[in-house]
Formats: sequence, structure tokens, C-alpha cells
Amino acid sequence: MQERNRGDFTLPGEAGYEALTLELARRWGADVIRDSDGTKLSGEIVDAGYRIYSTVCVIREHNAFAEAHPECQQQTFLISKPVIATGECARIPLMDGYFSEQFALNDSADALRYWQVYDRTTGEEVPRERWAYADGAVTVSSCAPWHRYTASFLCYRIWEEINMYNHTTNGWTSAHLRQLDPRSDVAWAYLTDFMDSWCRENPQTSVVRLTSLFYNFVWIWGSDARNRHLFTDWASYDFTVSPAALDAFAARYGYALTAEDFVRGGRHQSTHMPPTRAKLDYMDFIQEFVADKARELVAIIHRHGKQAYVFYDDSWVGMEPSGKRFASIGFDGLIKCVFSGFECRLCAAADVPVHELRLHPYLFPVGLGGLPTFSAGGDPALDARRYWRSVRRALLRQSVDRIGLGGYLHLTQDYPDFVFAIEEIADEFRRIKALHAHGKPYALPCRVAVLHTWGDLRPWTLSGHFHETDGHALIHVNEALSGLPVEVRFLRFDEAASGALRDVDVVVNAGRMGDAWSGGDAWRDPALVAELTRFVYEGGAFIGVGEPSAVSGRETVFAMAHVLGVDEDLGEHVCHGRWQFDVDDSLPVTVCADALGAKENLYLTDGEARVLCEKGGVPQLTVHSFGRGMGVYMSGFAVSPRSTRMLLELLLYACGLPRESDYLSDCAEVETAWYPGSRTLVAINNAEARVTARIATPQGPKQVTLEPLQGIEMRL
Amino acid sequence: MQERNRGDFTLPGEAGYEALTLELARRWGADVIRDSDGTKLSGEIVDAGYRIYSTVCVIREHNAFAEAHPECQQQTFLISKPVIATGECARIPLMDGYFSEQFALNDSADALRYWQVYDRTTGEEVPRERWAYADGAVTVSSCAPWHRYTASFLCYRIWEEINMYNHTTNGWTSAHLRQLDPRSDVAWAYLTDFMDSWCRENPQTSVVRLTSLFYNFVWIWGSDARNRHLFTDWASYDFTVSPAALDAFAARYGYALTAEDFVRGGRHQSTHMPPTRAKLDYMDFIQEFVADKARELVAIIHRHGKQAYVFYDDSWVGMEPSGKRFASIGFDGLIKCVFSGFECRLCAAADVPVHELRLHPYLFPVGLGGLPTFSAGGDPALDARRYWRSVRRALLRQSVDRIGLGGYLHLTQDYPDFVFAIEEIADEFRRIKALHAHGKPYALPCRVAVLHTWGDLRPWTLSGHFHETDGHALIHVNEALSGLPVEVRFLRFDEAASGALRDVDVVVNAGRMGDAWSGGDAWRDPALVAELTRFVYEGGAFIGVGEPSAVSGRETVFAMAHVLGVDEDLGEHVCHGRWQFDVDDSLPVTVCADALGAKENLYLTDGEARVLCEKGGVPQLTVHSFGRGMGVYMSGFAVSPRSTRMLLELLLYACGLPRESDYLSDCAEVETAWYPGSRTLVAINNAEARVTARIATPQGPKQVTLEPLQGIEMRL
Repeated sequence: MQERNRGDFTLPGEAGYEALTLELARRWGADVIRDSDGTKLSGEIVDAGYRIYSTVCVIREHNAFAEAHPECQQQTFLISKPVIATGECARIPLMDGYFSEQFALNDSADALRYWQVYDRTTGEEVPRERWAYADGAVTVSSCAPWHRYTASFLCYRIWEEINMYNHTTNGWTSAHLRQLDPRSDVAWAYLTDFMDSWCRENPQTSVVRLTSLFYNFVWIWGSDARNRHLFTDWASYDFTVSPAALDAFAARYGYALTAEDFVRGGRHQSTHMPPTRAKLDYMDFIQEFVADKARELVAIIHRHGKQAYVFYDDSWVGMEPSGKRFASIGFDGLIKCVFSGFECRLCAAADVPVHELRLHPYLFPVGLGGLPTFSAGGDPALDARRYWRSVRRALLRQSVDRIGLGGYLHLTQDYPDFVFAIEEIADEFRRIKALHAHGKPYALPCRVAVLHTWGDLRPWTLSGHFHETDGHALIHVNEALSGLPVEVRFLRFDEAASGALRDVDVVVNAGRMGDAWSGGDAWRDPALVAELTRFVYEGGAFIGVGEPSAVSGRETVFAMAHVLGVDEDLGEHVCHGRWQFDVDDSLPVTVCADALGAKENLYLTDGEARVLCEKGGVPQLTVHSFGRGMGVYMSGFAVSPRSTRMLLELLLYACGLPRESDYLSDCAEVETAWYPGSRTLVAINNAEARVTARIATPQGPKQVTLEPLQGIEMRL
Repeated sequence: MQERNRGDFTLPGEAGYEALTLELARRWGADVIRDSDGTKLSGEIVDAGYRIYSTVCVIREHNAFAEAHPECQQQTFLISKPVIATGECARIPLMDGYFSEQFALNDSADALRYWQVYDRTTGEEVPRERWAYADGAVTVSSCAPWHRYTASFLCYRIWEEINMYNHTTNGWTSAHLRQLDPRSDVAWAYLTDFMDSWCRENPQTSVVRLTSLFYNFVWIWGSDARNRHLFTDWASYDFTVSPAALDAFAARYGYALTAEDFVRGGRHQSTHMPPTRAKLDYMDFIQEFVADKARELVAIIHRHGKQAYVFYDDSWVGMEPSGKRFASIGFDGLIKCVFSGFECRLCAAADVPVHELRLHPYLFPVGLGGLPTFSAGGDPALDARRYWRSVRRALLRQSVDRIGLGGYLHLTQDYPDFVFAIEEIADEFRRIKALHAHGKPYALPCRVAVLHTWGDLRPWTLSGHFHETDGHALIHVNEALSGLPVEVRFLRFDEAASGALRDVDVVVNAGRMGDAWSGGDAWRDPALVAELTRFVYEGGAFIGVGEPSAVSGRETVFAMAHVLGVDEDLGEHVCHGRWQFDVDDSLPVTVCADALGAKENLYLTDGEARVLCEKGGVPQLTVHSFGRGMGVYMSGFAVSPRSTRMLLELLLYACGLPRESDYLSDCAEVETAWYPGSRTLVAINNAEARVTARIATPQGPKQVTLEPLQGIEMRL
């Protein structure tokens, strides 16, 4: 990989470090220079001949306006701690436990209409006449003795959450930035004026990089350092709420939402759980609002001859880049910060002209997980190469248009290894992109559909980065799939039940009982179960992971137990005998036992499943013939090169394809991609050691030896 | 322990081994000789001056009658395997998978009325006109494509299950014994005649030892040796069913039961799950029938001047020795086979003049678990001493009247250690019994109520022996409690909700979510939750084990989470922050981490629970102050001397009692009992090694050194 290239790279510049900025722009082949949260560009940088991206967070940096118009600030519902009624009255302090720098009670008459008090012991709302508010507390009268009471209420959010995070993480001492709600006409007029003025005042900017739109993902902080992040969900809409929004919703949908629809007794309603009908309606309502407002913003930017890119994170809520309205907004580019392969696929899935990845590590002293990067104990070069390893295999399947970095460029000064690593990565990115220019890479005749609640609205991701959702088997499966030479799509259950399996060979369902990924009550639909039964009986494969298709109160916990040949016992089968079995090692699948779970209550339903792996006498990986197809069960899945290989071999077996299919290597660590347009075979080594592998090709096997993490290209 | 004694011991005699019988009767101090299933007594034994127990299993050994009156045989519902409808019709073979030596289809018109066909994909019954029966199969027409269908039907049981088990275990070649249903008037007239004749023909018998009454616990065998025991539940009523019983039920209760009430799509309805209302009605209906018929039998026996003892196992179903009708039957004695301490307490809890324990091992070549006892590889002396260790500690708390053995006496000939062990055990039993004659042993001021679905109807046991139910934490808790110096009672949830906690200090709830032991939907009753909240707030303690008070769809999974300070996350709290904690080792509790579970999804609700043990960063043992009382949570509980000690220390702490309370030893292996009536302190060593312990007494600590498994008595 000798050739050098330029372009498709966005460099974070930094005023005061002009020489460094221009030197790294040259070494990394940048064509664009950007500012970041906390950095500015100087005239010397702006005038150096690069295109300029300028970061604009529309809804913040307007503290003077926010102070003059506090009612224009964004809001959220919160719920008090439960209080036990030890007497006739219960006094509920509202803000107890919440971070006072983030929230300020909204006790206006307008807001009080939406407050609620609940008897949590009965689950019933307490009538308005039985509670009163004063001095930050609600007092409930005529309490039922020993019942638990809560109050739900509206708060203004008085510190924009990303500013709060960066401020806290980096020890900033600047003012806490507030955020305005575009739902307010006054605020929206102000914000569009601001955008227009900004464009006029920044003629050098070619791309307005919106970071992001209006509403941050929900991120409720607590007062106690032992539990700072009370509730965090990258894809939930809690922070879009206000009396005005709720009133507009009621007028539009003909029914009113309540505080309880959001707080649900403190559980909230995370993306990991199937939504209620009300939540779906509300999401659609917000999506329409966000698209309408975003379209106005983009029009202003375009009017000034600039392009509008948007960042796929932070205040991205309501934008839904895979949703039906995103293309209509008119963005010119979408920028996704990525640690993983699935995020690369997520970005690529959006309908937008330019897809750009912001690689990690971010140029900050510490990373998102709190570990050091550009500070003592950090190894940013190694971090960069490891993240790139994950991203690269996904890029081999589905290219994007650009990559870049963000943060404080000066931090790289003490890390020459990092500078060199990015140089190599940028070059490798450009070569991969060039391969895609000649057409798609070859995919095995294996079309995989991942079945979950959100379907194609939320392809690839669960809710946030890998490390934020890694308790869920599905993100591991998605990450494995992101670099495999198979077609992947994401389907909702209702789509699967009504014809969408026509062009599918393998269906994957991976989750915990009742969650959005397993599907919960969706599996009570006989049409879904019958259609999947047909699908497998006629030759398809159903791969279930964890607690697939699980619902309570039926004969089996897994609705697809008859296909899987295995089920989970939640207590109703403790008196049933268990089928004895021997482990079957005759299948062309190399079992990666570490990647599986160690579930305790699984049992074979009819004794006919082949058990490929057991732990403690309990089957953990099974294959069950069903009609002309099969059910495959894995008790868990943790992504790694070896488990990814196992998944690939299971897919091959399920599709009747040989383990030695063309263009596959014989080594778990070495993955490949074949580009027929240029007759180029790429092999990448995902190991941090030298590896030799044999790759099957129509011309016979090719043996390759790859250095740690190396990627090579061969013309065949 | 030097003195020797005689009496209170039942010896299994064996014809052909008269000298051995009389020799062991002398050595073990027997006052009674019995026969067993498979052995007879000879005249020489019967005339040797001992009281004679004779085993009578009323409902079997009438094969000629059964063949002449096949409709008098007992029955059960079975359910076919599910069949997928791949076309318009589905053919369901009924007996596929069932043990043909146990079951014979009852396709009489009378039985067919109770057959049912279900579409399991929709959960709906298929109307009668859409299915037909012929040649052992049901054919369903107008099927929904790809739906699963089952048929439920009645079978005669043509091999009495205990005979089937003994036959199979011991390789017997004798005829398969059938069993008659006393529900049939013809059969009942025959059986009462038989009982009367039997008494007349066996004048030497002083005690008719009924083994047992009419209906065996459910034990459905399969055709495949890889899964022989398809469904086994020691306390379920499935084997009481017949068209006659169902008709009588409908006439009496005003609604009809269906096959589905029993088979529940193949799940059946085990004792480990909360019963439906219909099941409770049906149990009551059968209990009344069994009591009525048993009363007639006992009257016949009494009329012949004999006593009637009954065996608390095998065909005991409907008898319910802790139920409200048991005393009215008029039995003179109850015999319980025991491996464990809780079974001793279970036997003692029945209202009957004589309680007798049949110790283990049974004199058979192999034990119930299938391991060798009186055969190569077995060590019956060690087995006997280990079972006795468990039983003895319970006997120190609550005496019974007699002990004994069963089986083939000749098997002891090659095991002199066993003969000696029983000699020692019999003597120790008599000494313990004598201590109780002077009044109850001292109990700590700690009154424990175990809260579960069955309450006092099923005290101490779950459903069968310890090793049959050891997947449930509660049987471990019960076994630990059976020998602790505390008062123990068993309460139903409705009792706890309505005043029964008045005389209780500690409530224990231990089970899996939704099962009969945790309680399932019982926890949706606000009155129960409020009352327990009051109970703890005012100074009581609530000890939850596993998934206590767990229900779905509420703010917390554990309904008592506010008291416990810990909850389980089933998926709704993955976006919530977790309270950081340090392990607190300041409490006077020696943690036995091995005994706890290793649950993954537990979290602290308010951060205030003290964590005594964690695994993988997840709390496993917590203590949470609540008002003047506390909640204690254990993620699991496996009984051992050390975990029993931990439980005792938790009880002491919860009741505000010092760890060094009077008459307690400082050693987990050494347990004690104080008999104030005779001022006798007993100390037992539960270890198989020599142990030294200090025992607190009002006169100051006493140091004792005990040989392996030794028990000693001290006068204070």
C-alpha cells in the first residue's frame, strides 16, 4: 500500500496552531478544515486554500436571549422519588436527586396542567383536587396508608447537555450554554435570523456543519456523583417535550399525552423497549416538526450559497436519517462519528449526497468511556488503529464518501505515532473508496434480514455507540454482520408478516424477552409466527439469539420454539424431563464457545436439535432441521473475529453453501472482499499479529501472509 | 451417648431371612416389623412378639378385576405433539412419544366428550365439527396454513406408577400391576370388600400401613429412553381425572373443566406455579372425595381392631396431611420417607397421633437418584449418616414419634457399617425424643413467616424431596430453617394481607418471578404490598431471595423493591445509571458468597442499600433500612452449614439480636438446642471432621470438641 493520495479528509484546525494545522493537512491529505466545539479557525487557516466546514449548534450560544425569554428554553418531564404515605398526607419534594445545574422547575400555570401525581401502589392517578404544589414540593392529601406516591412535573433544561458534558469532562470554566426550543415562535424567529446573519458574517465557510439540529437525546443527570447519569438514551424523544408541543399533539392526534406517557413511573420508555402506540405517534409528530424546521434552516444556508451538513449525534433527535422525511430536508451531507463497523453502515444507509465518518479517537484528553486518550496512559495511535480495524471491514462492504477527525489538533503534537497512523488510515480509506467506484463487492447468495421493532428506521444501531449498548447481543450481531460478505437488511415484524421475507434467506432475531430487539408482544401475532414457520419450512433459516421471539403466557416462551427446537423455561417446565443429548461436532461450523452465553434454563423441545455447544449440561448453540430449512439458536453472541467467523459459517450452512466458498479465507482473523469490477481481492488482517491464510478463489487457493492489522489488494 | 434403648423403630422384615430379621430387630431396638413392596413376612417373624405393620396399596394388585372392568382403571389427560399444518388437513397421531406400557387411549364416547383440538398458533380451540378421530389419530380439516395443532385426549393408565418404577429399577419380571379408580362405584364396592376381607385374613397385623390412598402424583413417562420422565410433579392432581370426576365437578361447581385446564398446551400446571381458580376448585373437590373414601377405608380397618397408618408419598394425592380434612379421616399414624430436615418438619406438621419417619437409604440396590446404595460403589452407612445429619437438626426443633426403614433387609448383610450406623442413629433418635418429652426447646425471639402461594396447605415442602426440587432457592431456605432455633410458619399471600403478620418478626419470600414461591400475580394486590410496607416500616424485616415479589409491567419488577432497595432489570432499566457502591463488611454477618446467586441484572434502587456481597459488580446480598425495619435481599440461596449460619445471622440482625445470643455456637458447623425442661443443651457437629466450638450460655461460654457428626448432651 504505497501510493499516496489527497482529498476526502476533514481536518480539525486550531487557531494558534497554524503551522501544525497546515502540516497535518498536508500529511493526512485533507481537502477540508473544520472548527470544533472549543476550537476556532484563524484567518491564516481559513485563507490557506482549503474548503471550510464551520460547526454551528443552532439552539445554543444564545444565553442573553434565553435569559430574556426563559419560557423559550427547552424542557422535559421528570418524576419525583416515590414517597411512602405514613400518615394522611405525603409531602413529595420534586427535585430531590436531580442535578440542579441542569434543571429548573417549570411551575407556570401552563406547565402545571401537565403535572401528575400517582399512587404507585395501586397504579392509579391521584385526582388533581387531592394534591397541591408549593415551594418545590407537592403535598398529597387523603393518602391510602403505606402507599407510595410520586409526582411528575415539567422542568426547563438550563444547561445544554453536550456543553454540560464537555464542560465537565474538560474542566471548562466558561458560561453554561442554554438551549432554545424552536417550538416557540419567538425563539424560532430569533434562530432563523441568527442563521441568516451567521451565513452573512461567515463568507469563508463553504459547509455549515450543523451540530446537530434542535433536540438532544435524553440525558438526565443526578445530584449524586455515585449515580450521575440517571437516564441516558441516544434515541429517545423525552427532551422534545413542552406544553406547546403537547397541546399541538393533542390538537393533531385527537388525544392528549400525559406526563406518565414519558416517565412511566420512573422507567421512562427507552429505545430498547417496544414503543406504545402513543410513543410512535409522538415520534412521528416530532419528526415532522423537526423536518419542517430543518428544511427552513437548510434553505437559509443554501440561499447563502453554502452547503449544509448535519452531525448524526447529540441534538439529532427527530431527524431520523433513515426515516421517510430525511431526504426532503435537503441536507448536502451527513457526518457520523464512528467507533465501529455498524456505525459506518448506519451512516451509509441514509439518503444524502455525502456521507462522512468522523473517526475516533476524538482529539480530547479523555475518550467517551472516560479513559485517557491524548493524556498520560493513553495510546491514541493504537486506539485509532483498533477503531479503524472495525470500520475498515464495514467500508469494504459499503463505502462512504469522506472521513475526518475532530477536537483539539494541538493534542496530537506529542503523539507522532498517532499522526502516522492517521496518515496510513486516510490513504487506506481512499484506496477502498476507489475500489467501490468500479461497482459493488461480491456478496454470497445469502440475504440476511435482522428482525426487530424499529426495522429500517433504525438500521444497524441500537441506541448509540457499541460500548453504550454492548449488553445487548444484537449490537454484537450487527457489528459482526457489518463486515461480512452478505446482504443485510432490517425489517419490522409487521413487514415480515406481510411479504417482506420474499427476498430473504436468513432471518435473525436477537434480544431479551420483551425488548425491542426480541420483539415482545409482536410475537403474539399468529400471522407473524405462521409466516416465519412457512419461511423456514420452505427452506429459510431462522437464527435466534438470547431470548428470540419470547413472550410470556404461551405454551412455549419462544414463539419460534417449534422451529428452533429449543426453548427457555421461565418456571413452567421445571417438572418436565430434559432430553439427554451428546454434543454434535459433525457440522462445518467452528464453535466459538466464549462468544455464546451460559444460560441456565434452556431445554430441547423435541430432542431433535443438534447441540453444537453446551455449558453445564445446557445447550447453548443448536441447529434444528425444520421442513427444508432450519432453526439455529445461540444463547448469546459476543463479537470477535472468531465469533464472526462462526456466524459466517452458520450462515453458509443455513444457505447450503460450502465453508470453502469463493473469496473466503480459511482463517477467522483474515477477512476478504472481492471487487469484480476491478477484479481486485482485498484481504485484511484483523489480528495484531502476523497471520497466514488461504483464500479460496475460482483460480484455486491463494496463500497470503499479512502483517498485524495489514490490508492488501490483489488483482486476480 | 452410651445408653441403649428400645422401641419407636420399625424394621422391614423379610421372609427367608428370619434370623437376620430378628437379630437386627434386637440391635436396632425395633418394636415393629413391617413388610415392604417386594418382601413378605413369614410366620416365624410374625409370631416373634413384635407389632406387625402390613403394607397395603389398596388400588392395585387387582389385575383380574381391572381386566374384567377396564373402564374402572384410572385415567389422565395427555396432549399430542404439535403438528404443523402444511396443507388443508393435519393428521395428529395421539400417542406418539408416550410410553405405551403406561397408557392406553380411552376413545369411548364418554371420554371423547372431553377431547380437545387446539390451534396453538392462535391459541383457539378448533370446533368439534372440524376434527375427526380414527385409528389413534385426529384429523383436523380446514386448517390455517402453517399453524400448529394439538389434540388433548383421555388415556387409561394401565401400569400403576410405583410398580412401574420399582419394576424398572429392580428388573422385576412380575406382572404389571394395574390400578382402580375409586370414583367408579363398581370398583369402590370391590375395593371396600377387598379391604374388609384383607383385614379378616390378616389377624396378625396390628397396623395397616396404607401405601398410600388412591391417586398417585402425576408421572408421565415417554417412549424415548433419552427423555423417559416427561412430566413429574409430586403434588399435582392430574392422575385423579376421569369423565366421571369431571361430570361430578361440573354438577357441583356449576362450570365444566376441560382438557386444557390440565394439559395447558403441554405445560401442565405444576405445583411450582400459582394455580388457577379452576385448579383450586378441582383440588378441593378431589380432597373432599379422597377424604370421604379414606374415611370409609379407615372405618373398615378400625372395625377389625387394627390401626391405620398412611404413607405420605406415592398415591397420596388429595390426602393433603396439612389440609383441613386430614384429621377427619381418622388415621392413627402418618409415615413420611425423609432425606432432609424439612421433611421431618413436614411430617410433624400433620394433625395425627403418630408421626413416623422412614429413613433413607431405602434398602434397594440403587437410590432414588439412580446412584448405587446397596451395590458396588455404594456406601449406605455414609448415606445413612448424611441423611441423618439433615434430619437430626430438624428433630432437635420438633420431635416425631417413630423412625424406621424399608426395603430388602437381606441387602444389609454385606454392610456391617450400615447396621452399626442405624444402631447409633436409632439410639440418638430415642434420646432426642426423650428430651422433647420435657417440653419444647428454646427458640430465639424471632418468628419467621415463609410467604408463598400454598401457605400452610404445603408447609416446608415444595413438591417432593430436596433433590427433586433443588433448583428452587426456597427448598434450600426451608431446609436451613428446619433446624434453626426460630419459630417458622407458612402463610399464603391473602393471609399476610389480612392480619396474619401480627405475630411475625421476619417475612421470607423466595422464588422465581411468576412461580408459586415468589407469588406471581399475588403481588398485584395493593393491600398485600401496603401491609408488608407497614410491617417493615414499623420494625419488621422482609427477606427476599432470587426474584421475590416479582411481577411484570410495574415500575419495579420486585413489588417490594422500595423495601429491599434493590430490583431486577428485565430490560426497562438498561438506560438508567447504576449506583456505585463499596462492599460493606461492617455488619455482624459472615457472608457465604458461594451460597448466593450470581445474578446479572440487579441494581440498587436508591443507592442506600448496604451491599454485603457483589459478583461482577452486581450486588448479590444487600441490607436496606426501611423505617424502623429492613429489607434483606439474597440473589440466591444454596443450603450448607455456612449458608445456614449466614441466614441465622441475618435473622438475628433483622430482629436486633446479638450474634452471640444464648445457646448459639460460634461455629457454622456446630448447631445447638436448649431444652429448658430438662436443662439440657445439645450440640451437634454437622461436619465430617472434628470441630471445636464455643457455645454462649447464661453461665458463660462453654467450649466443646465434637467428633465428626457427633451429637452430645450437657446438663447446665
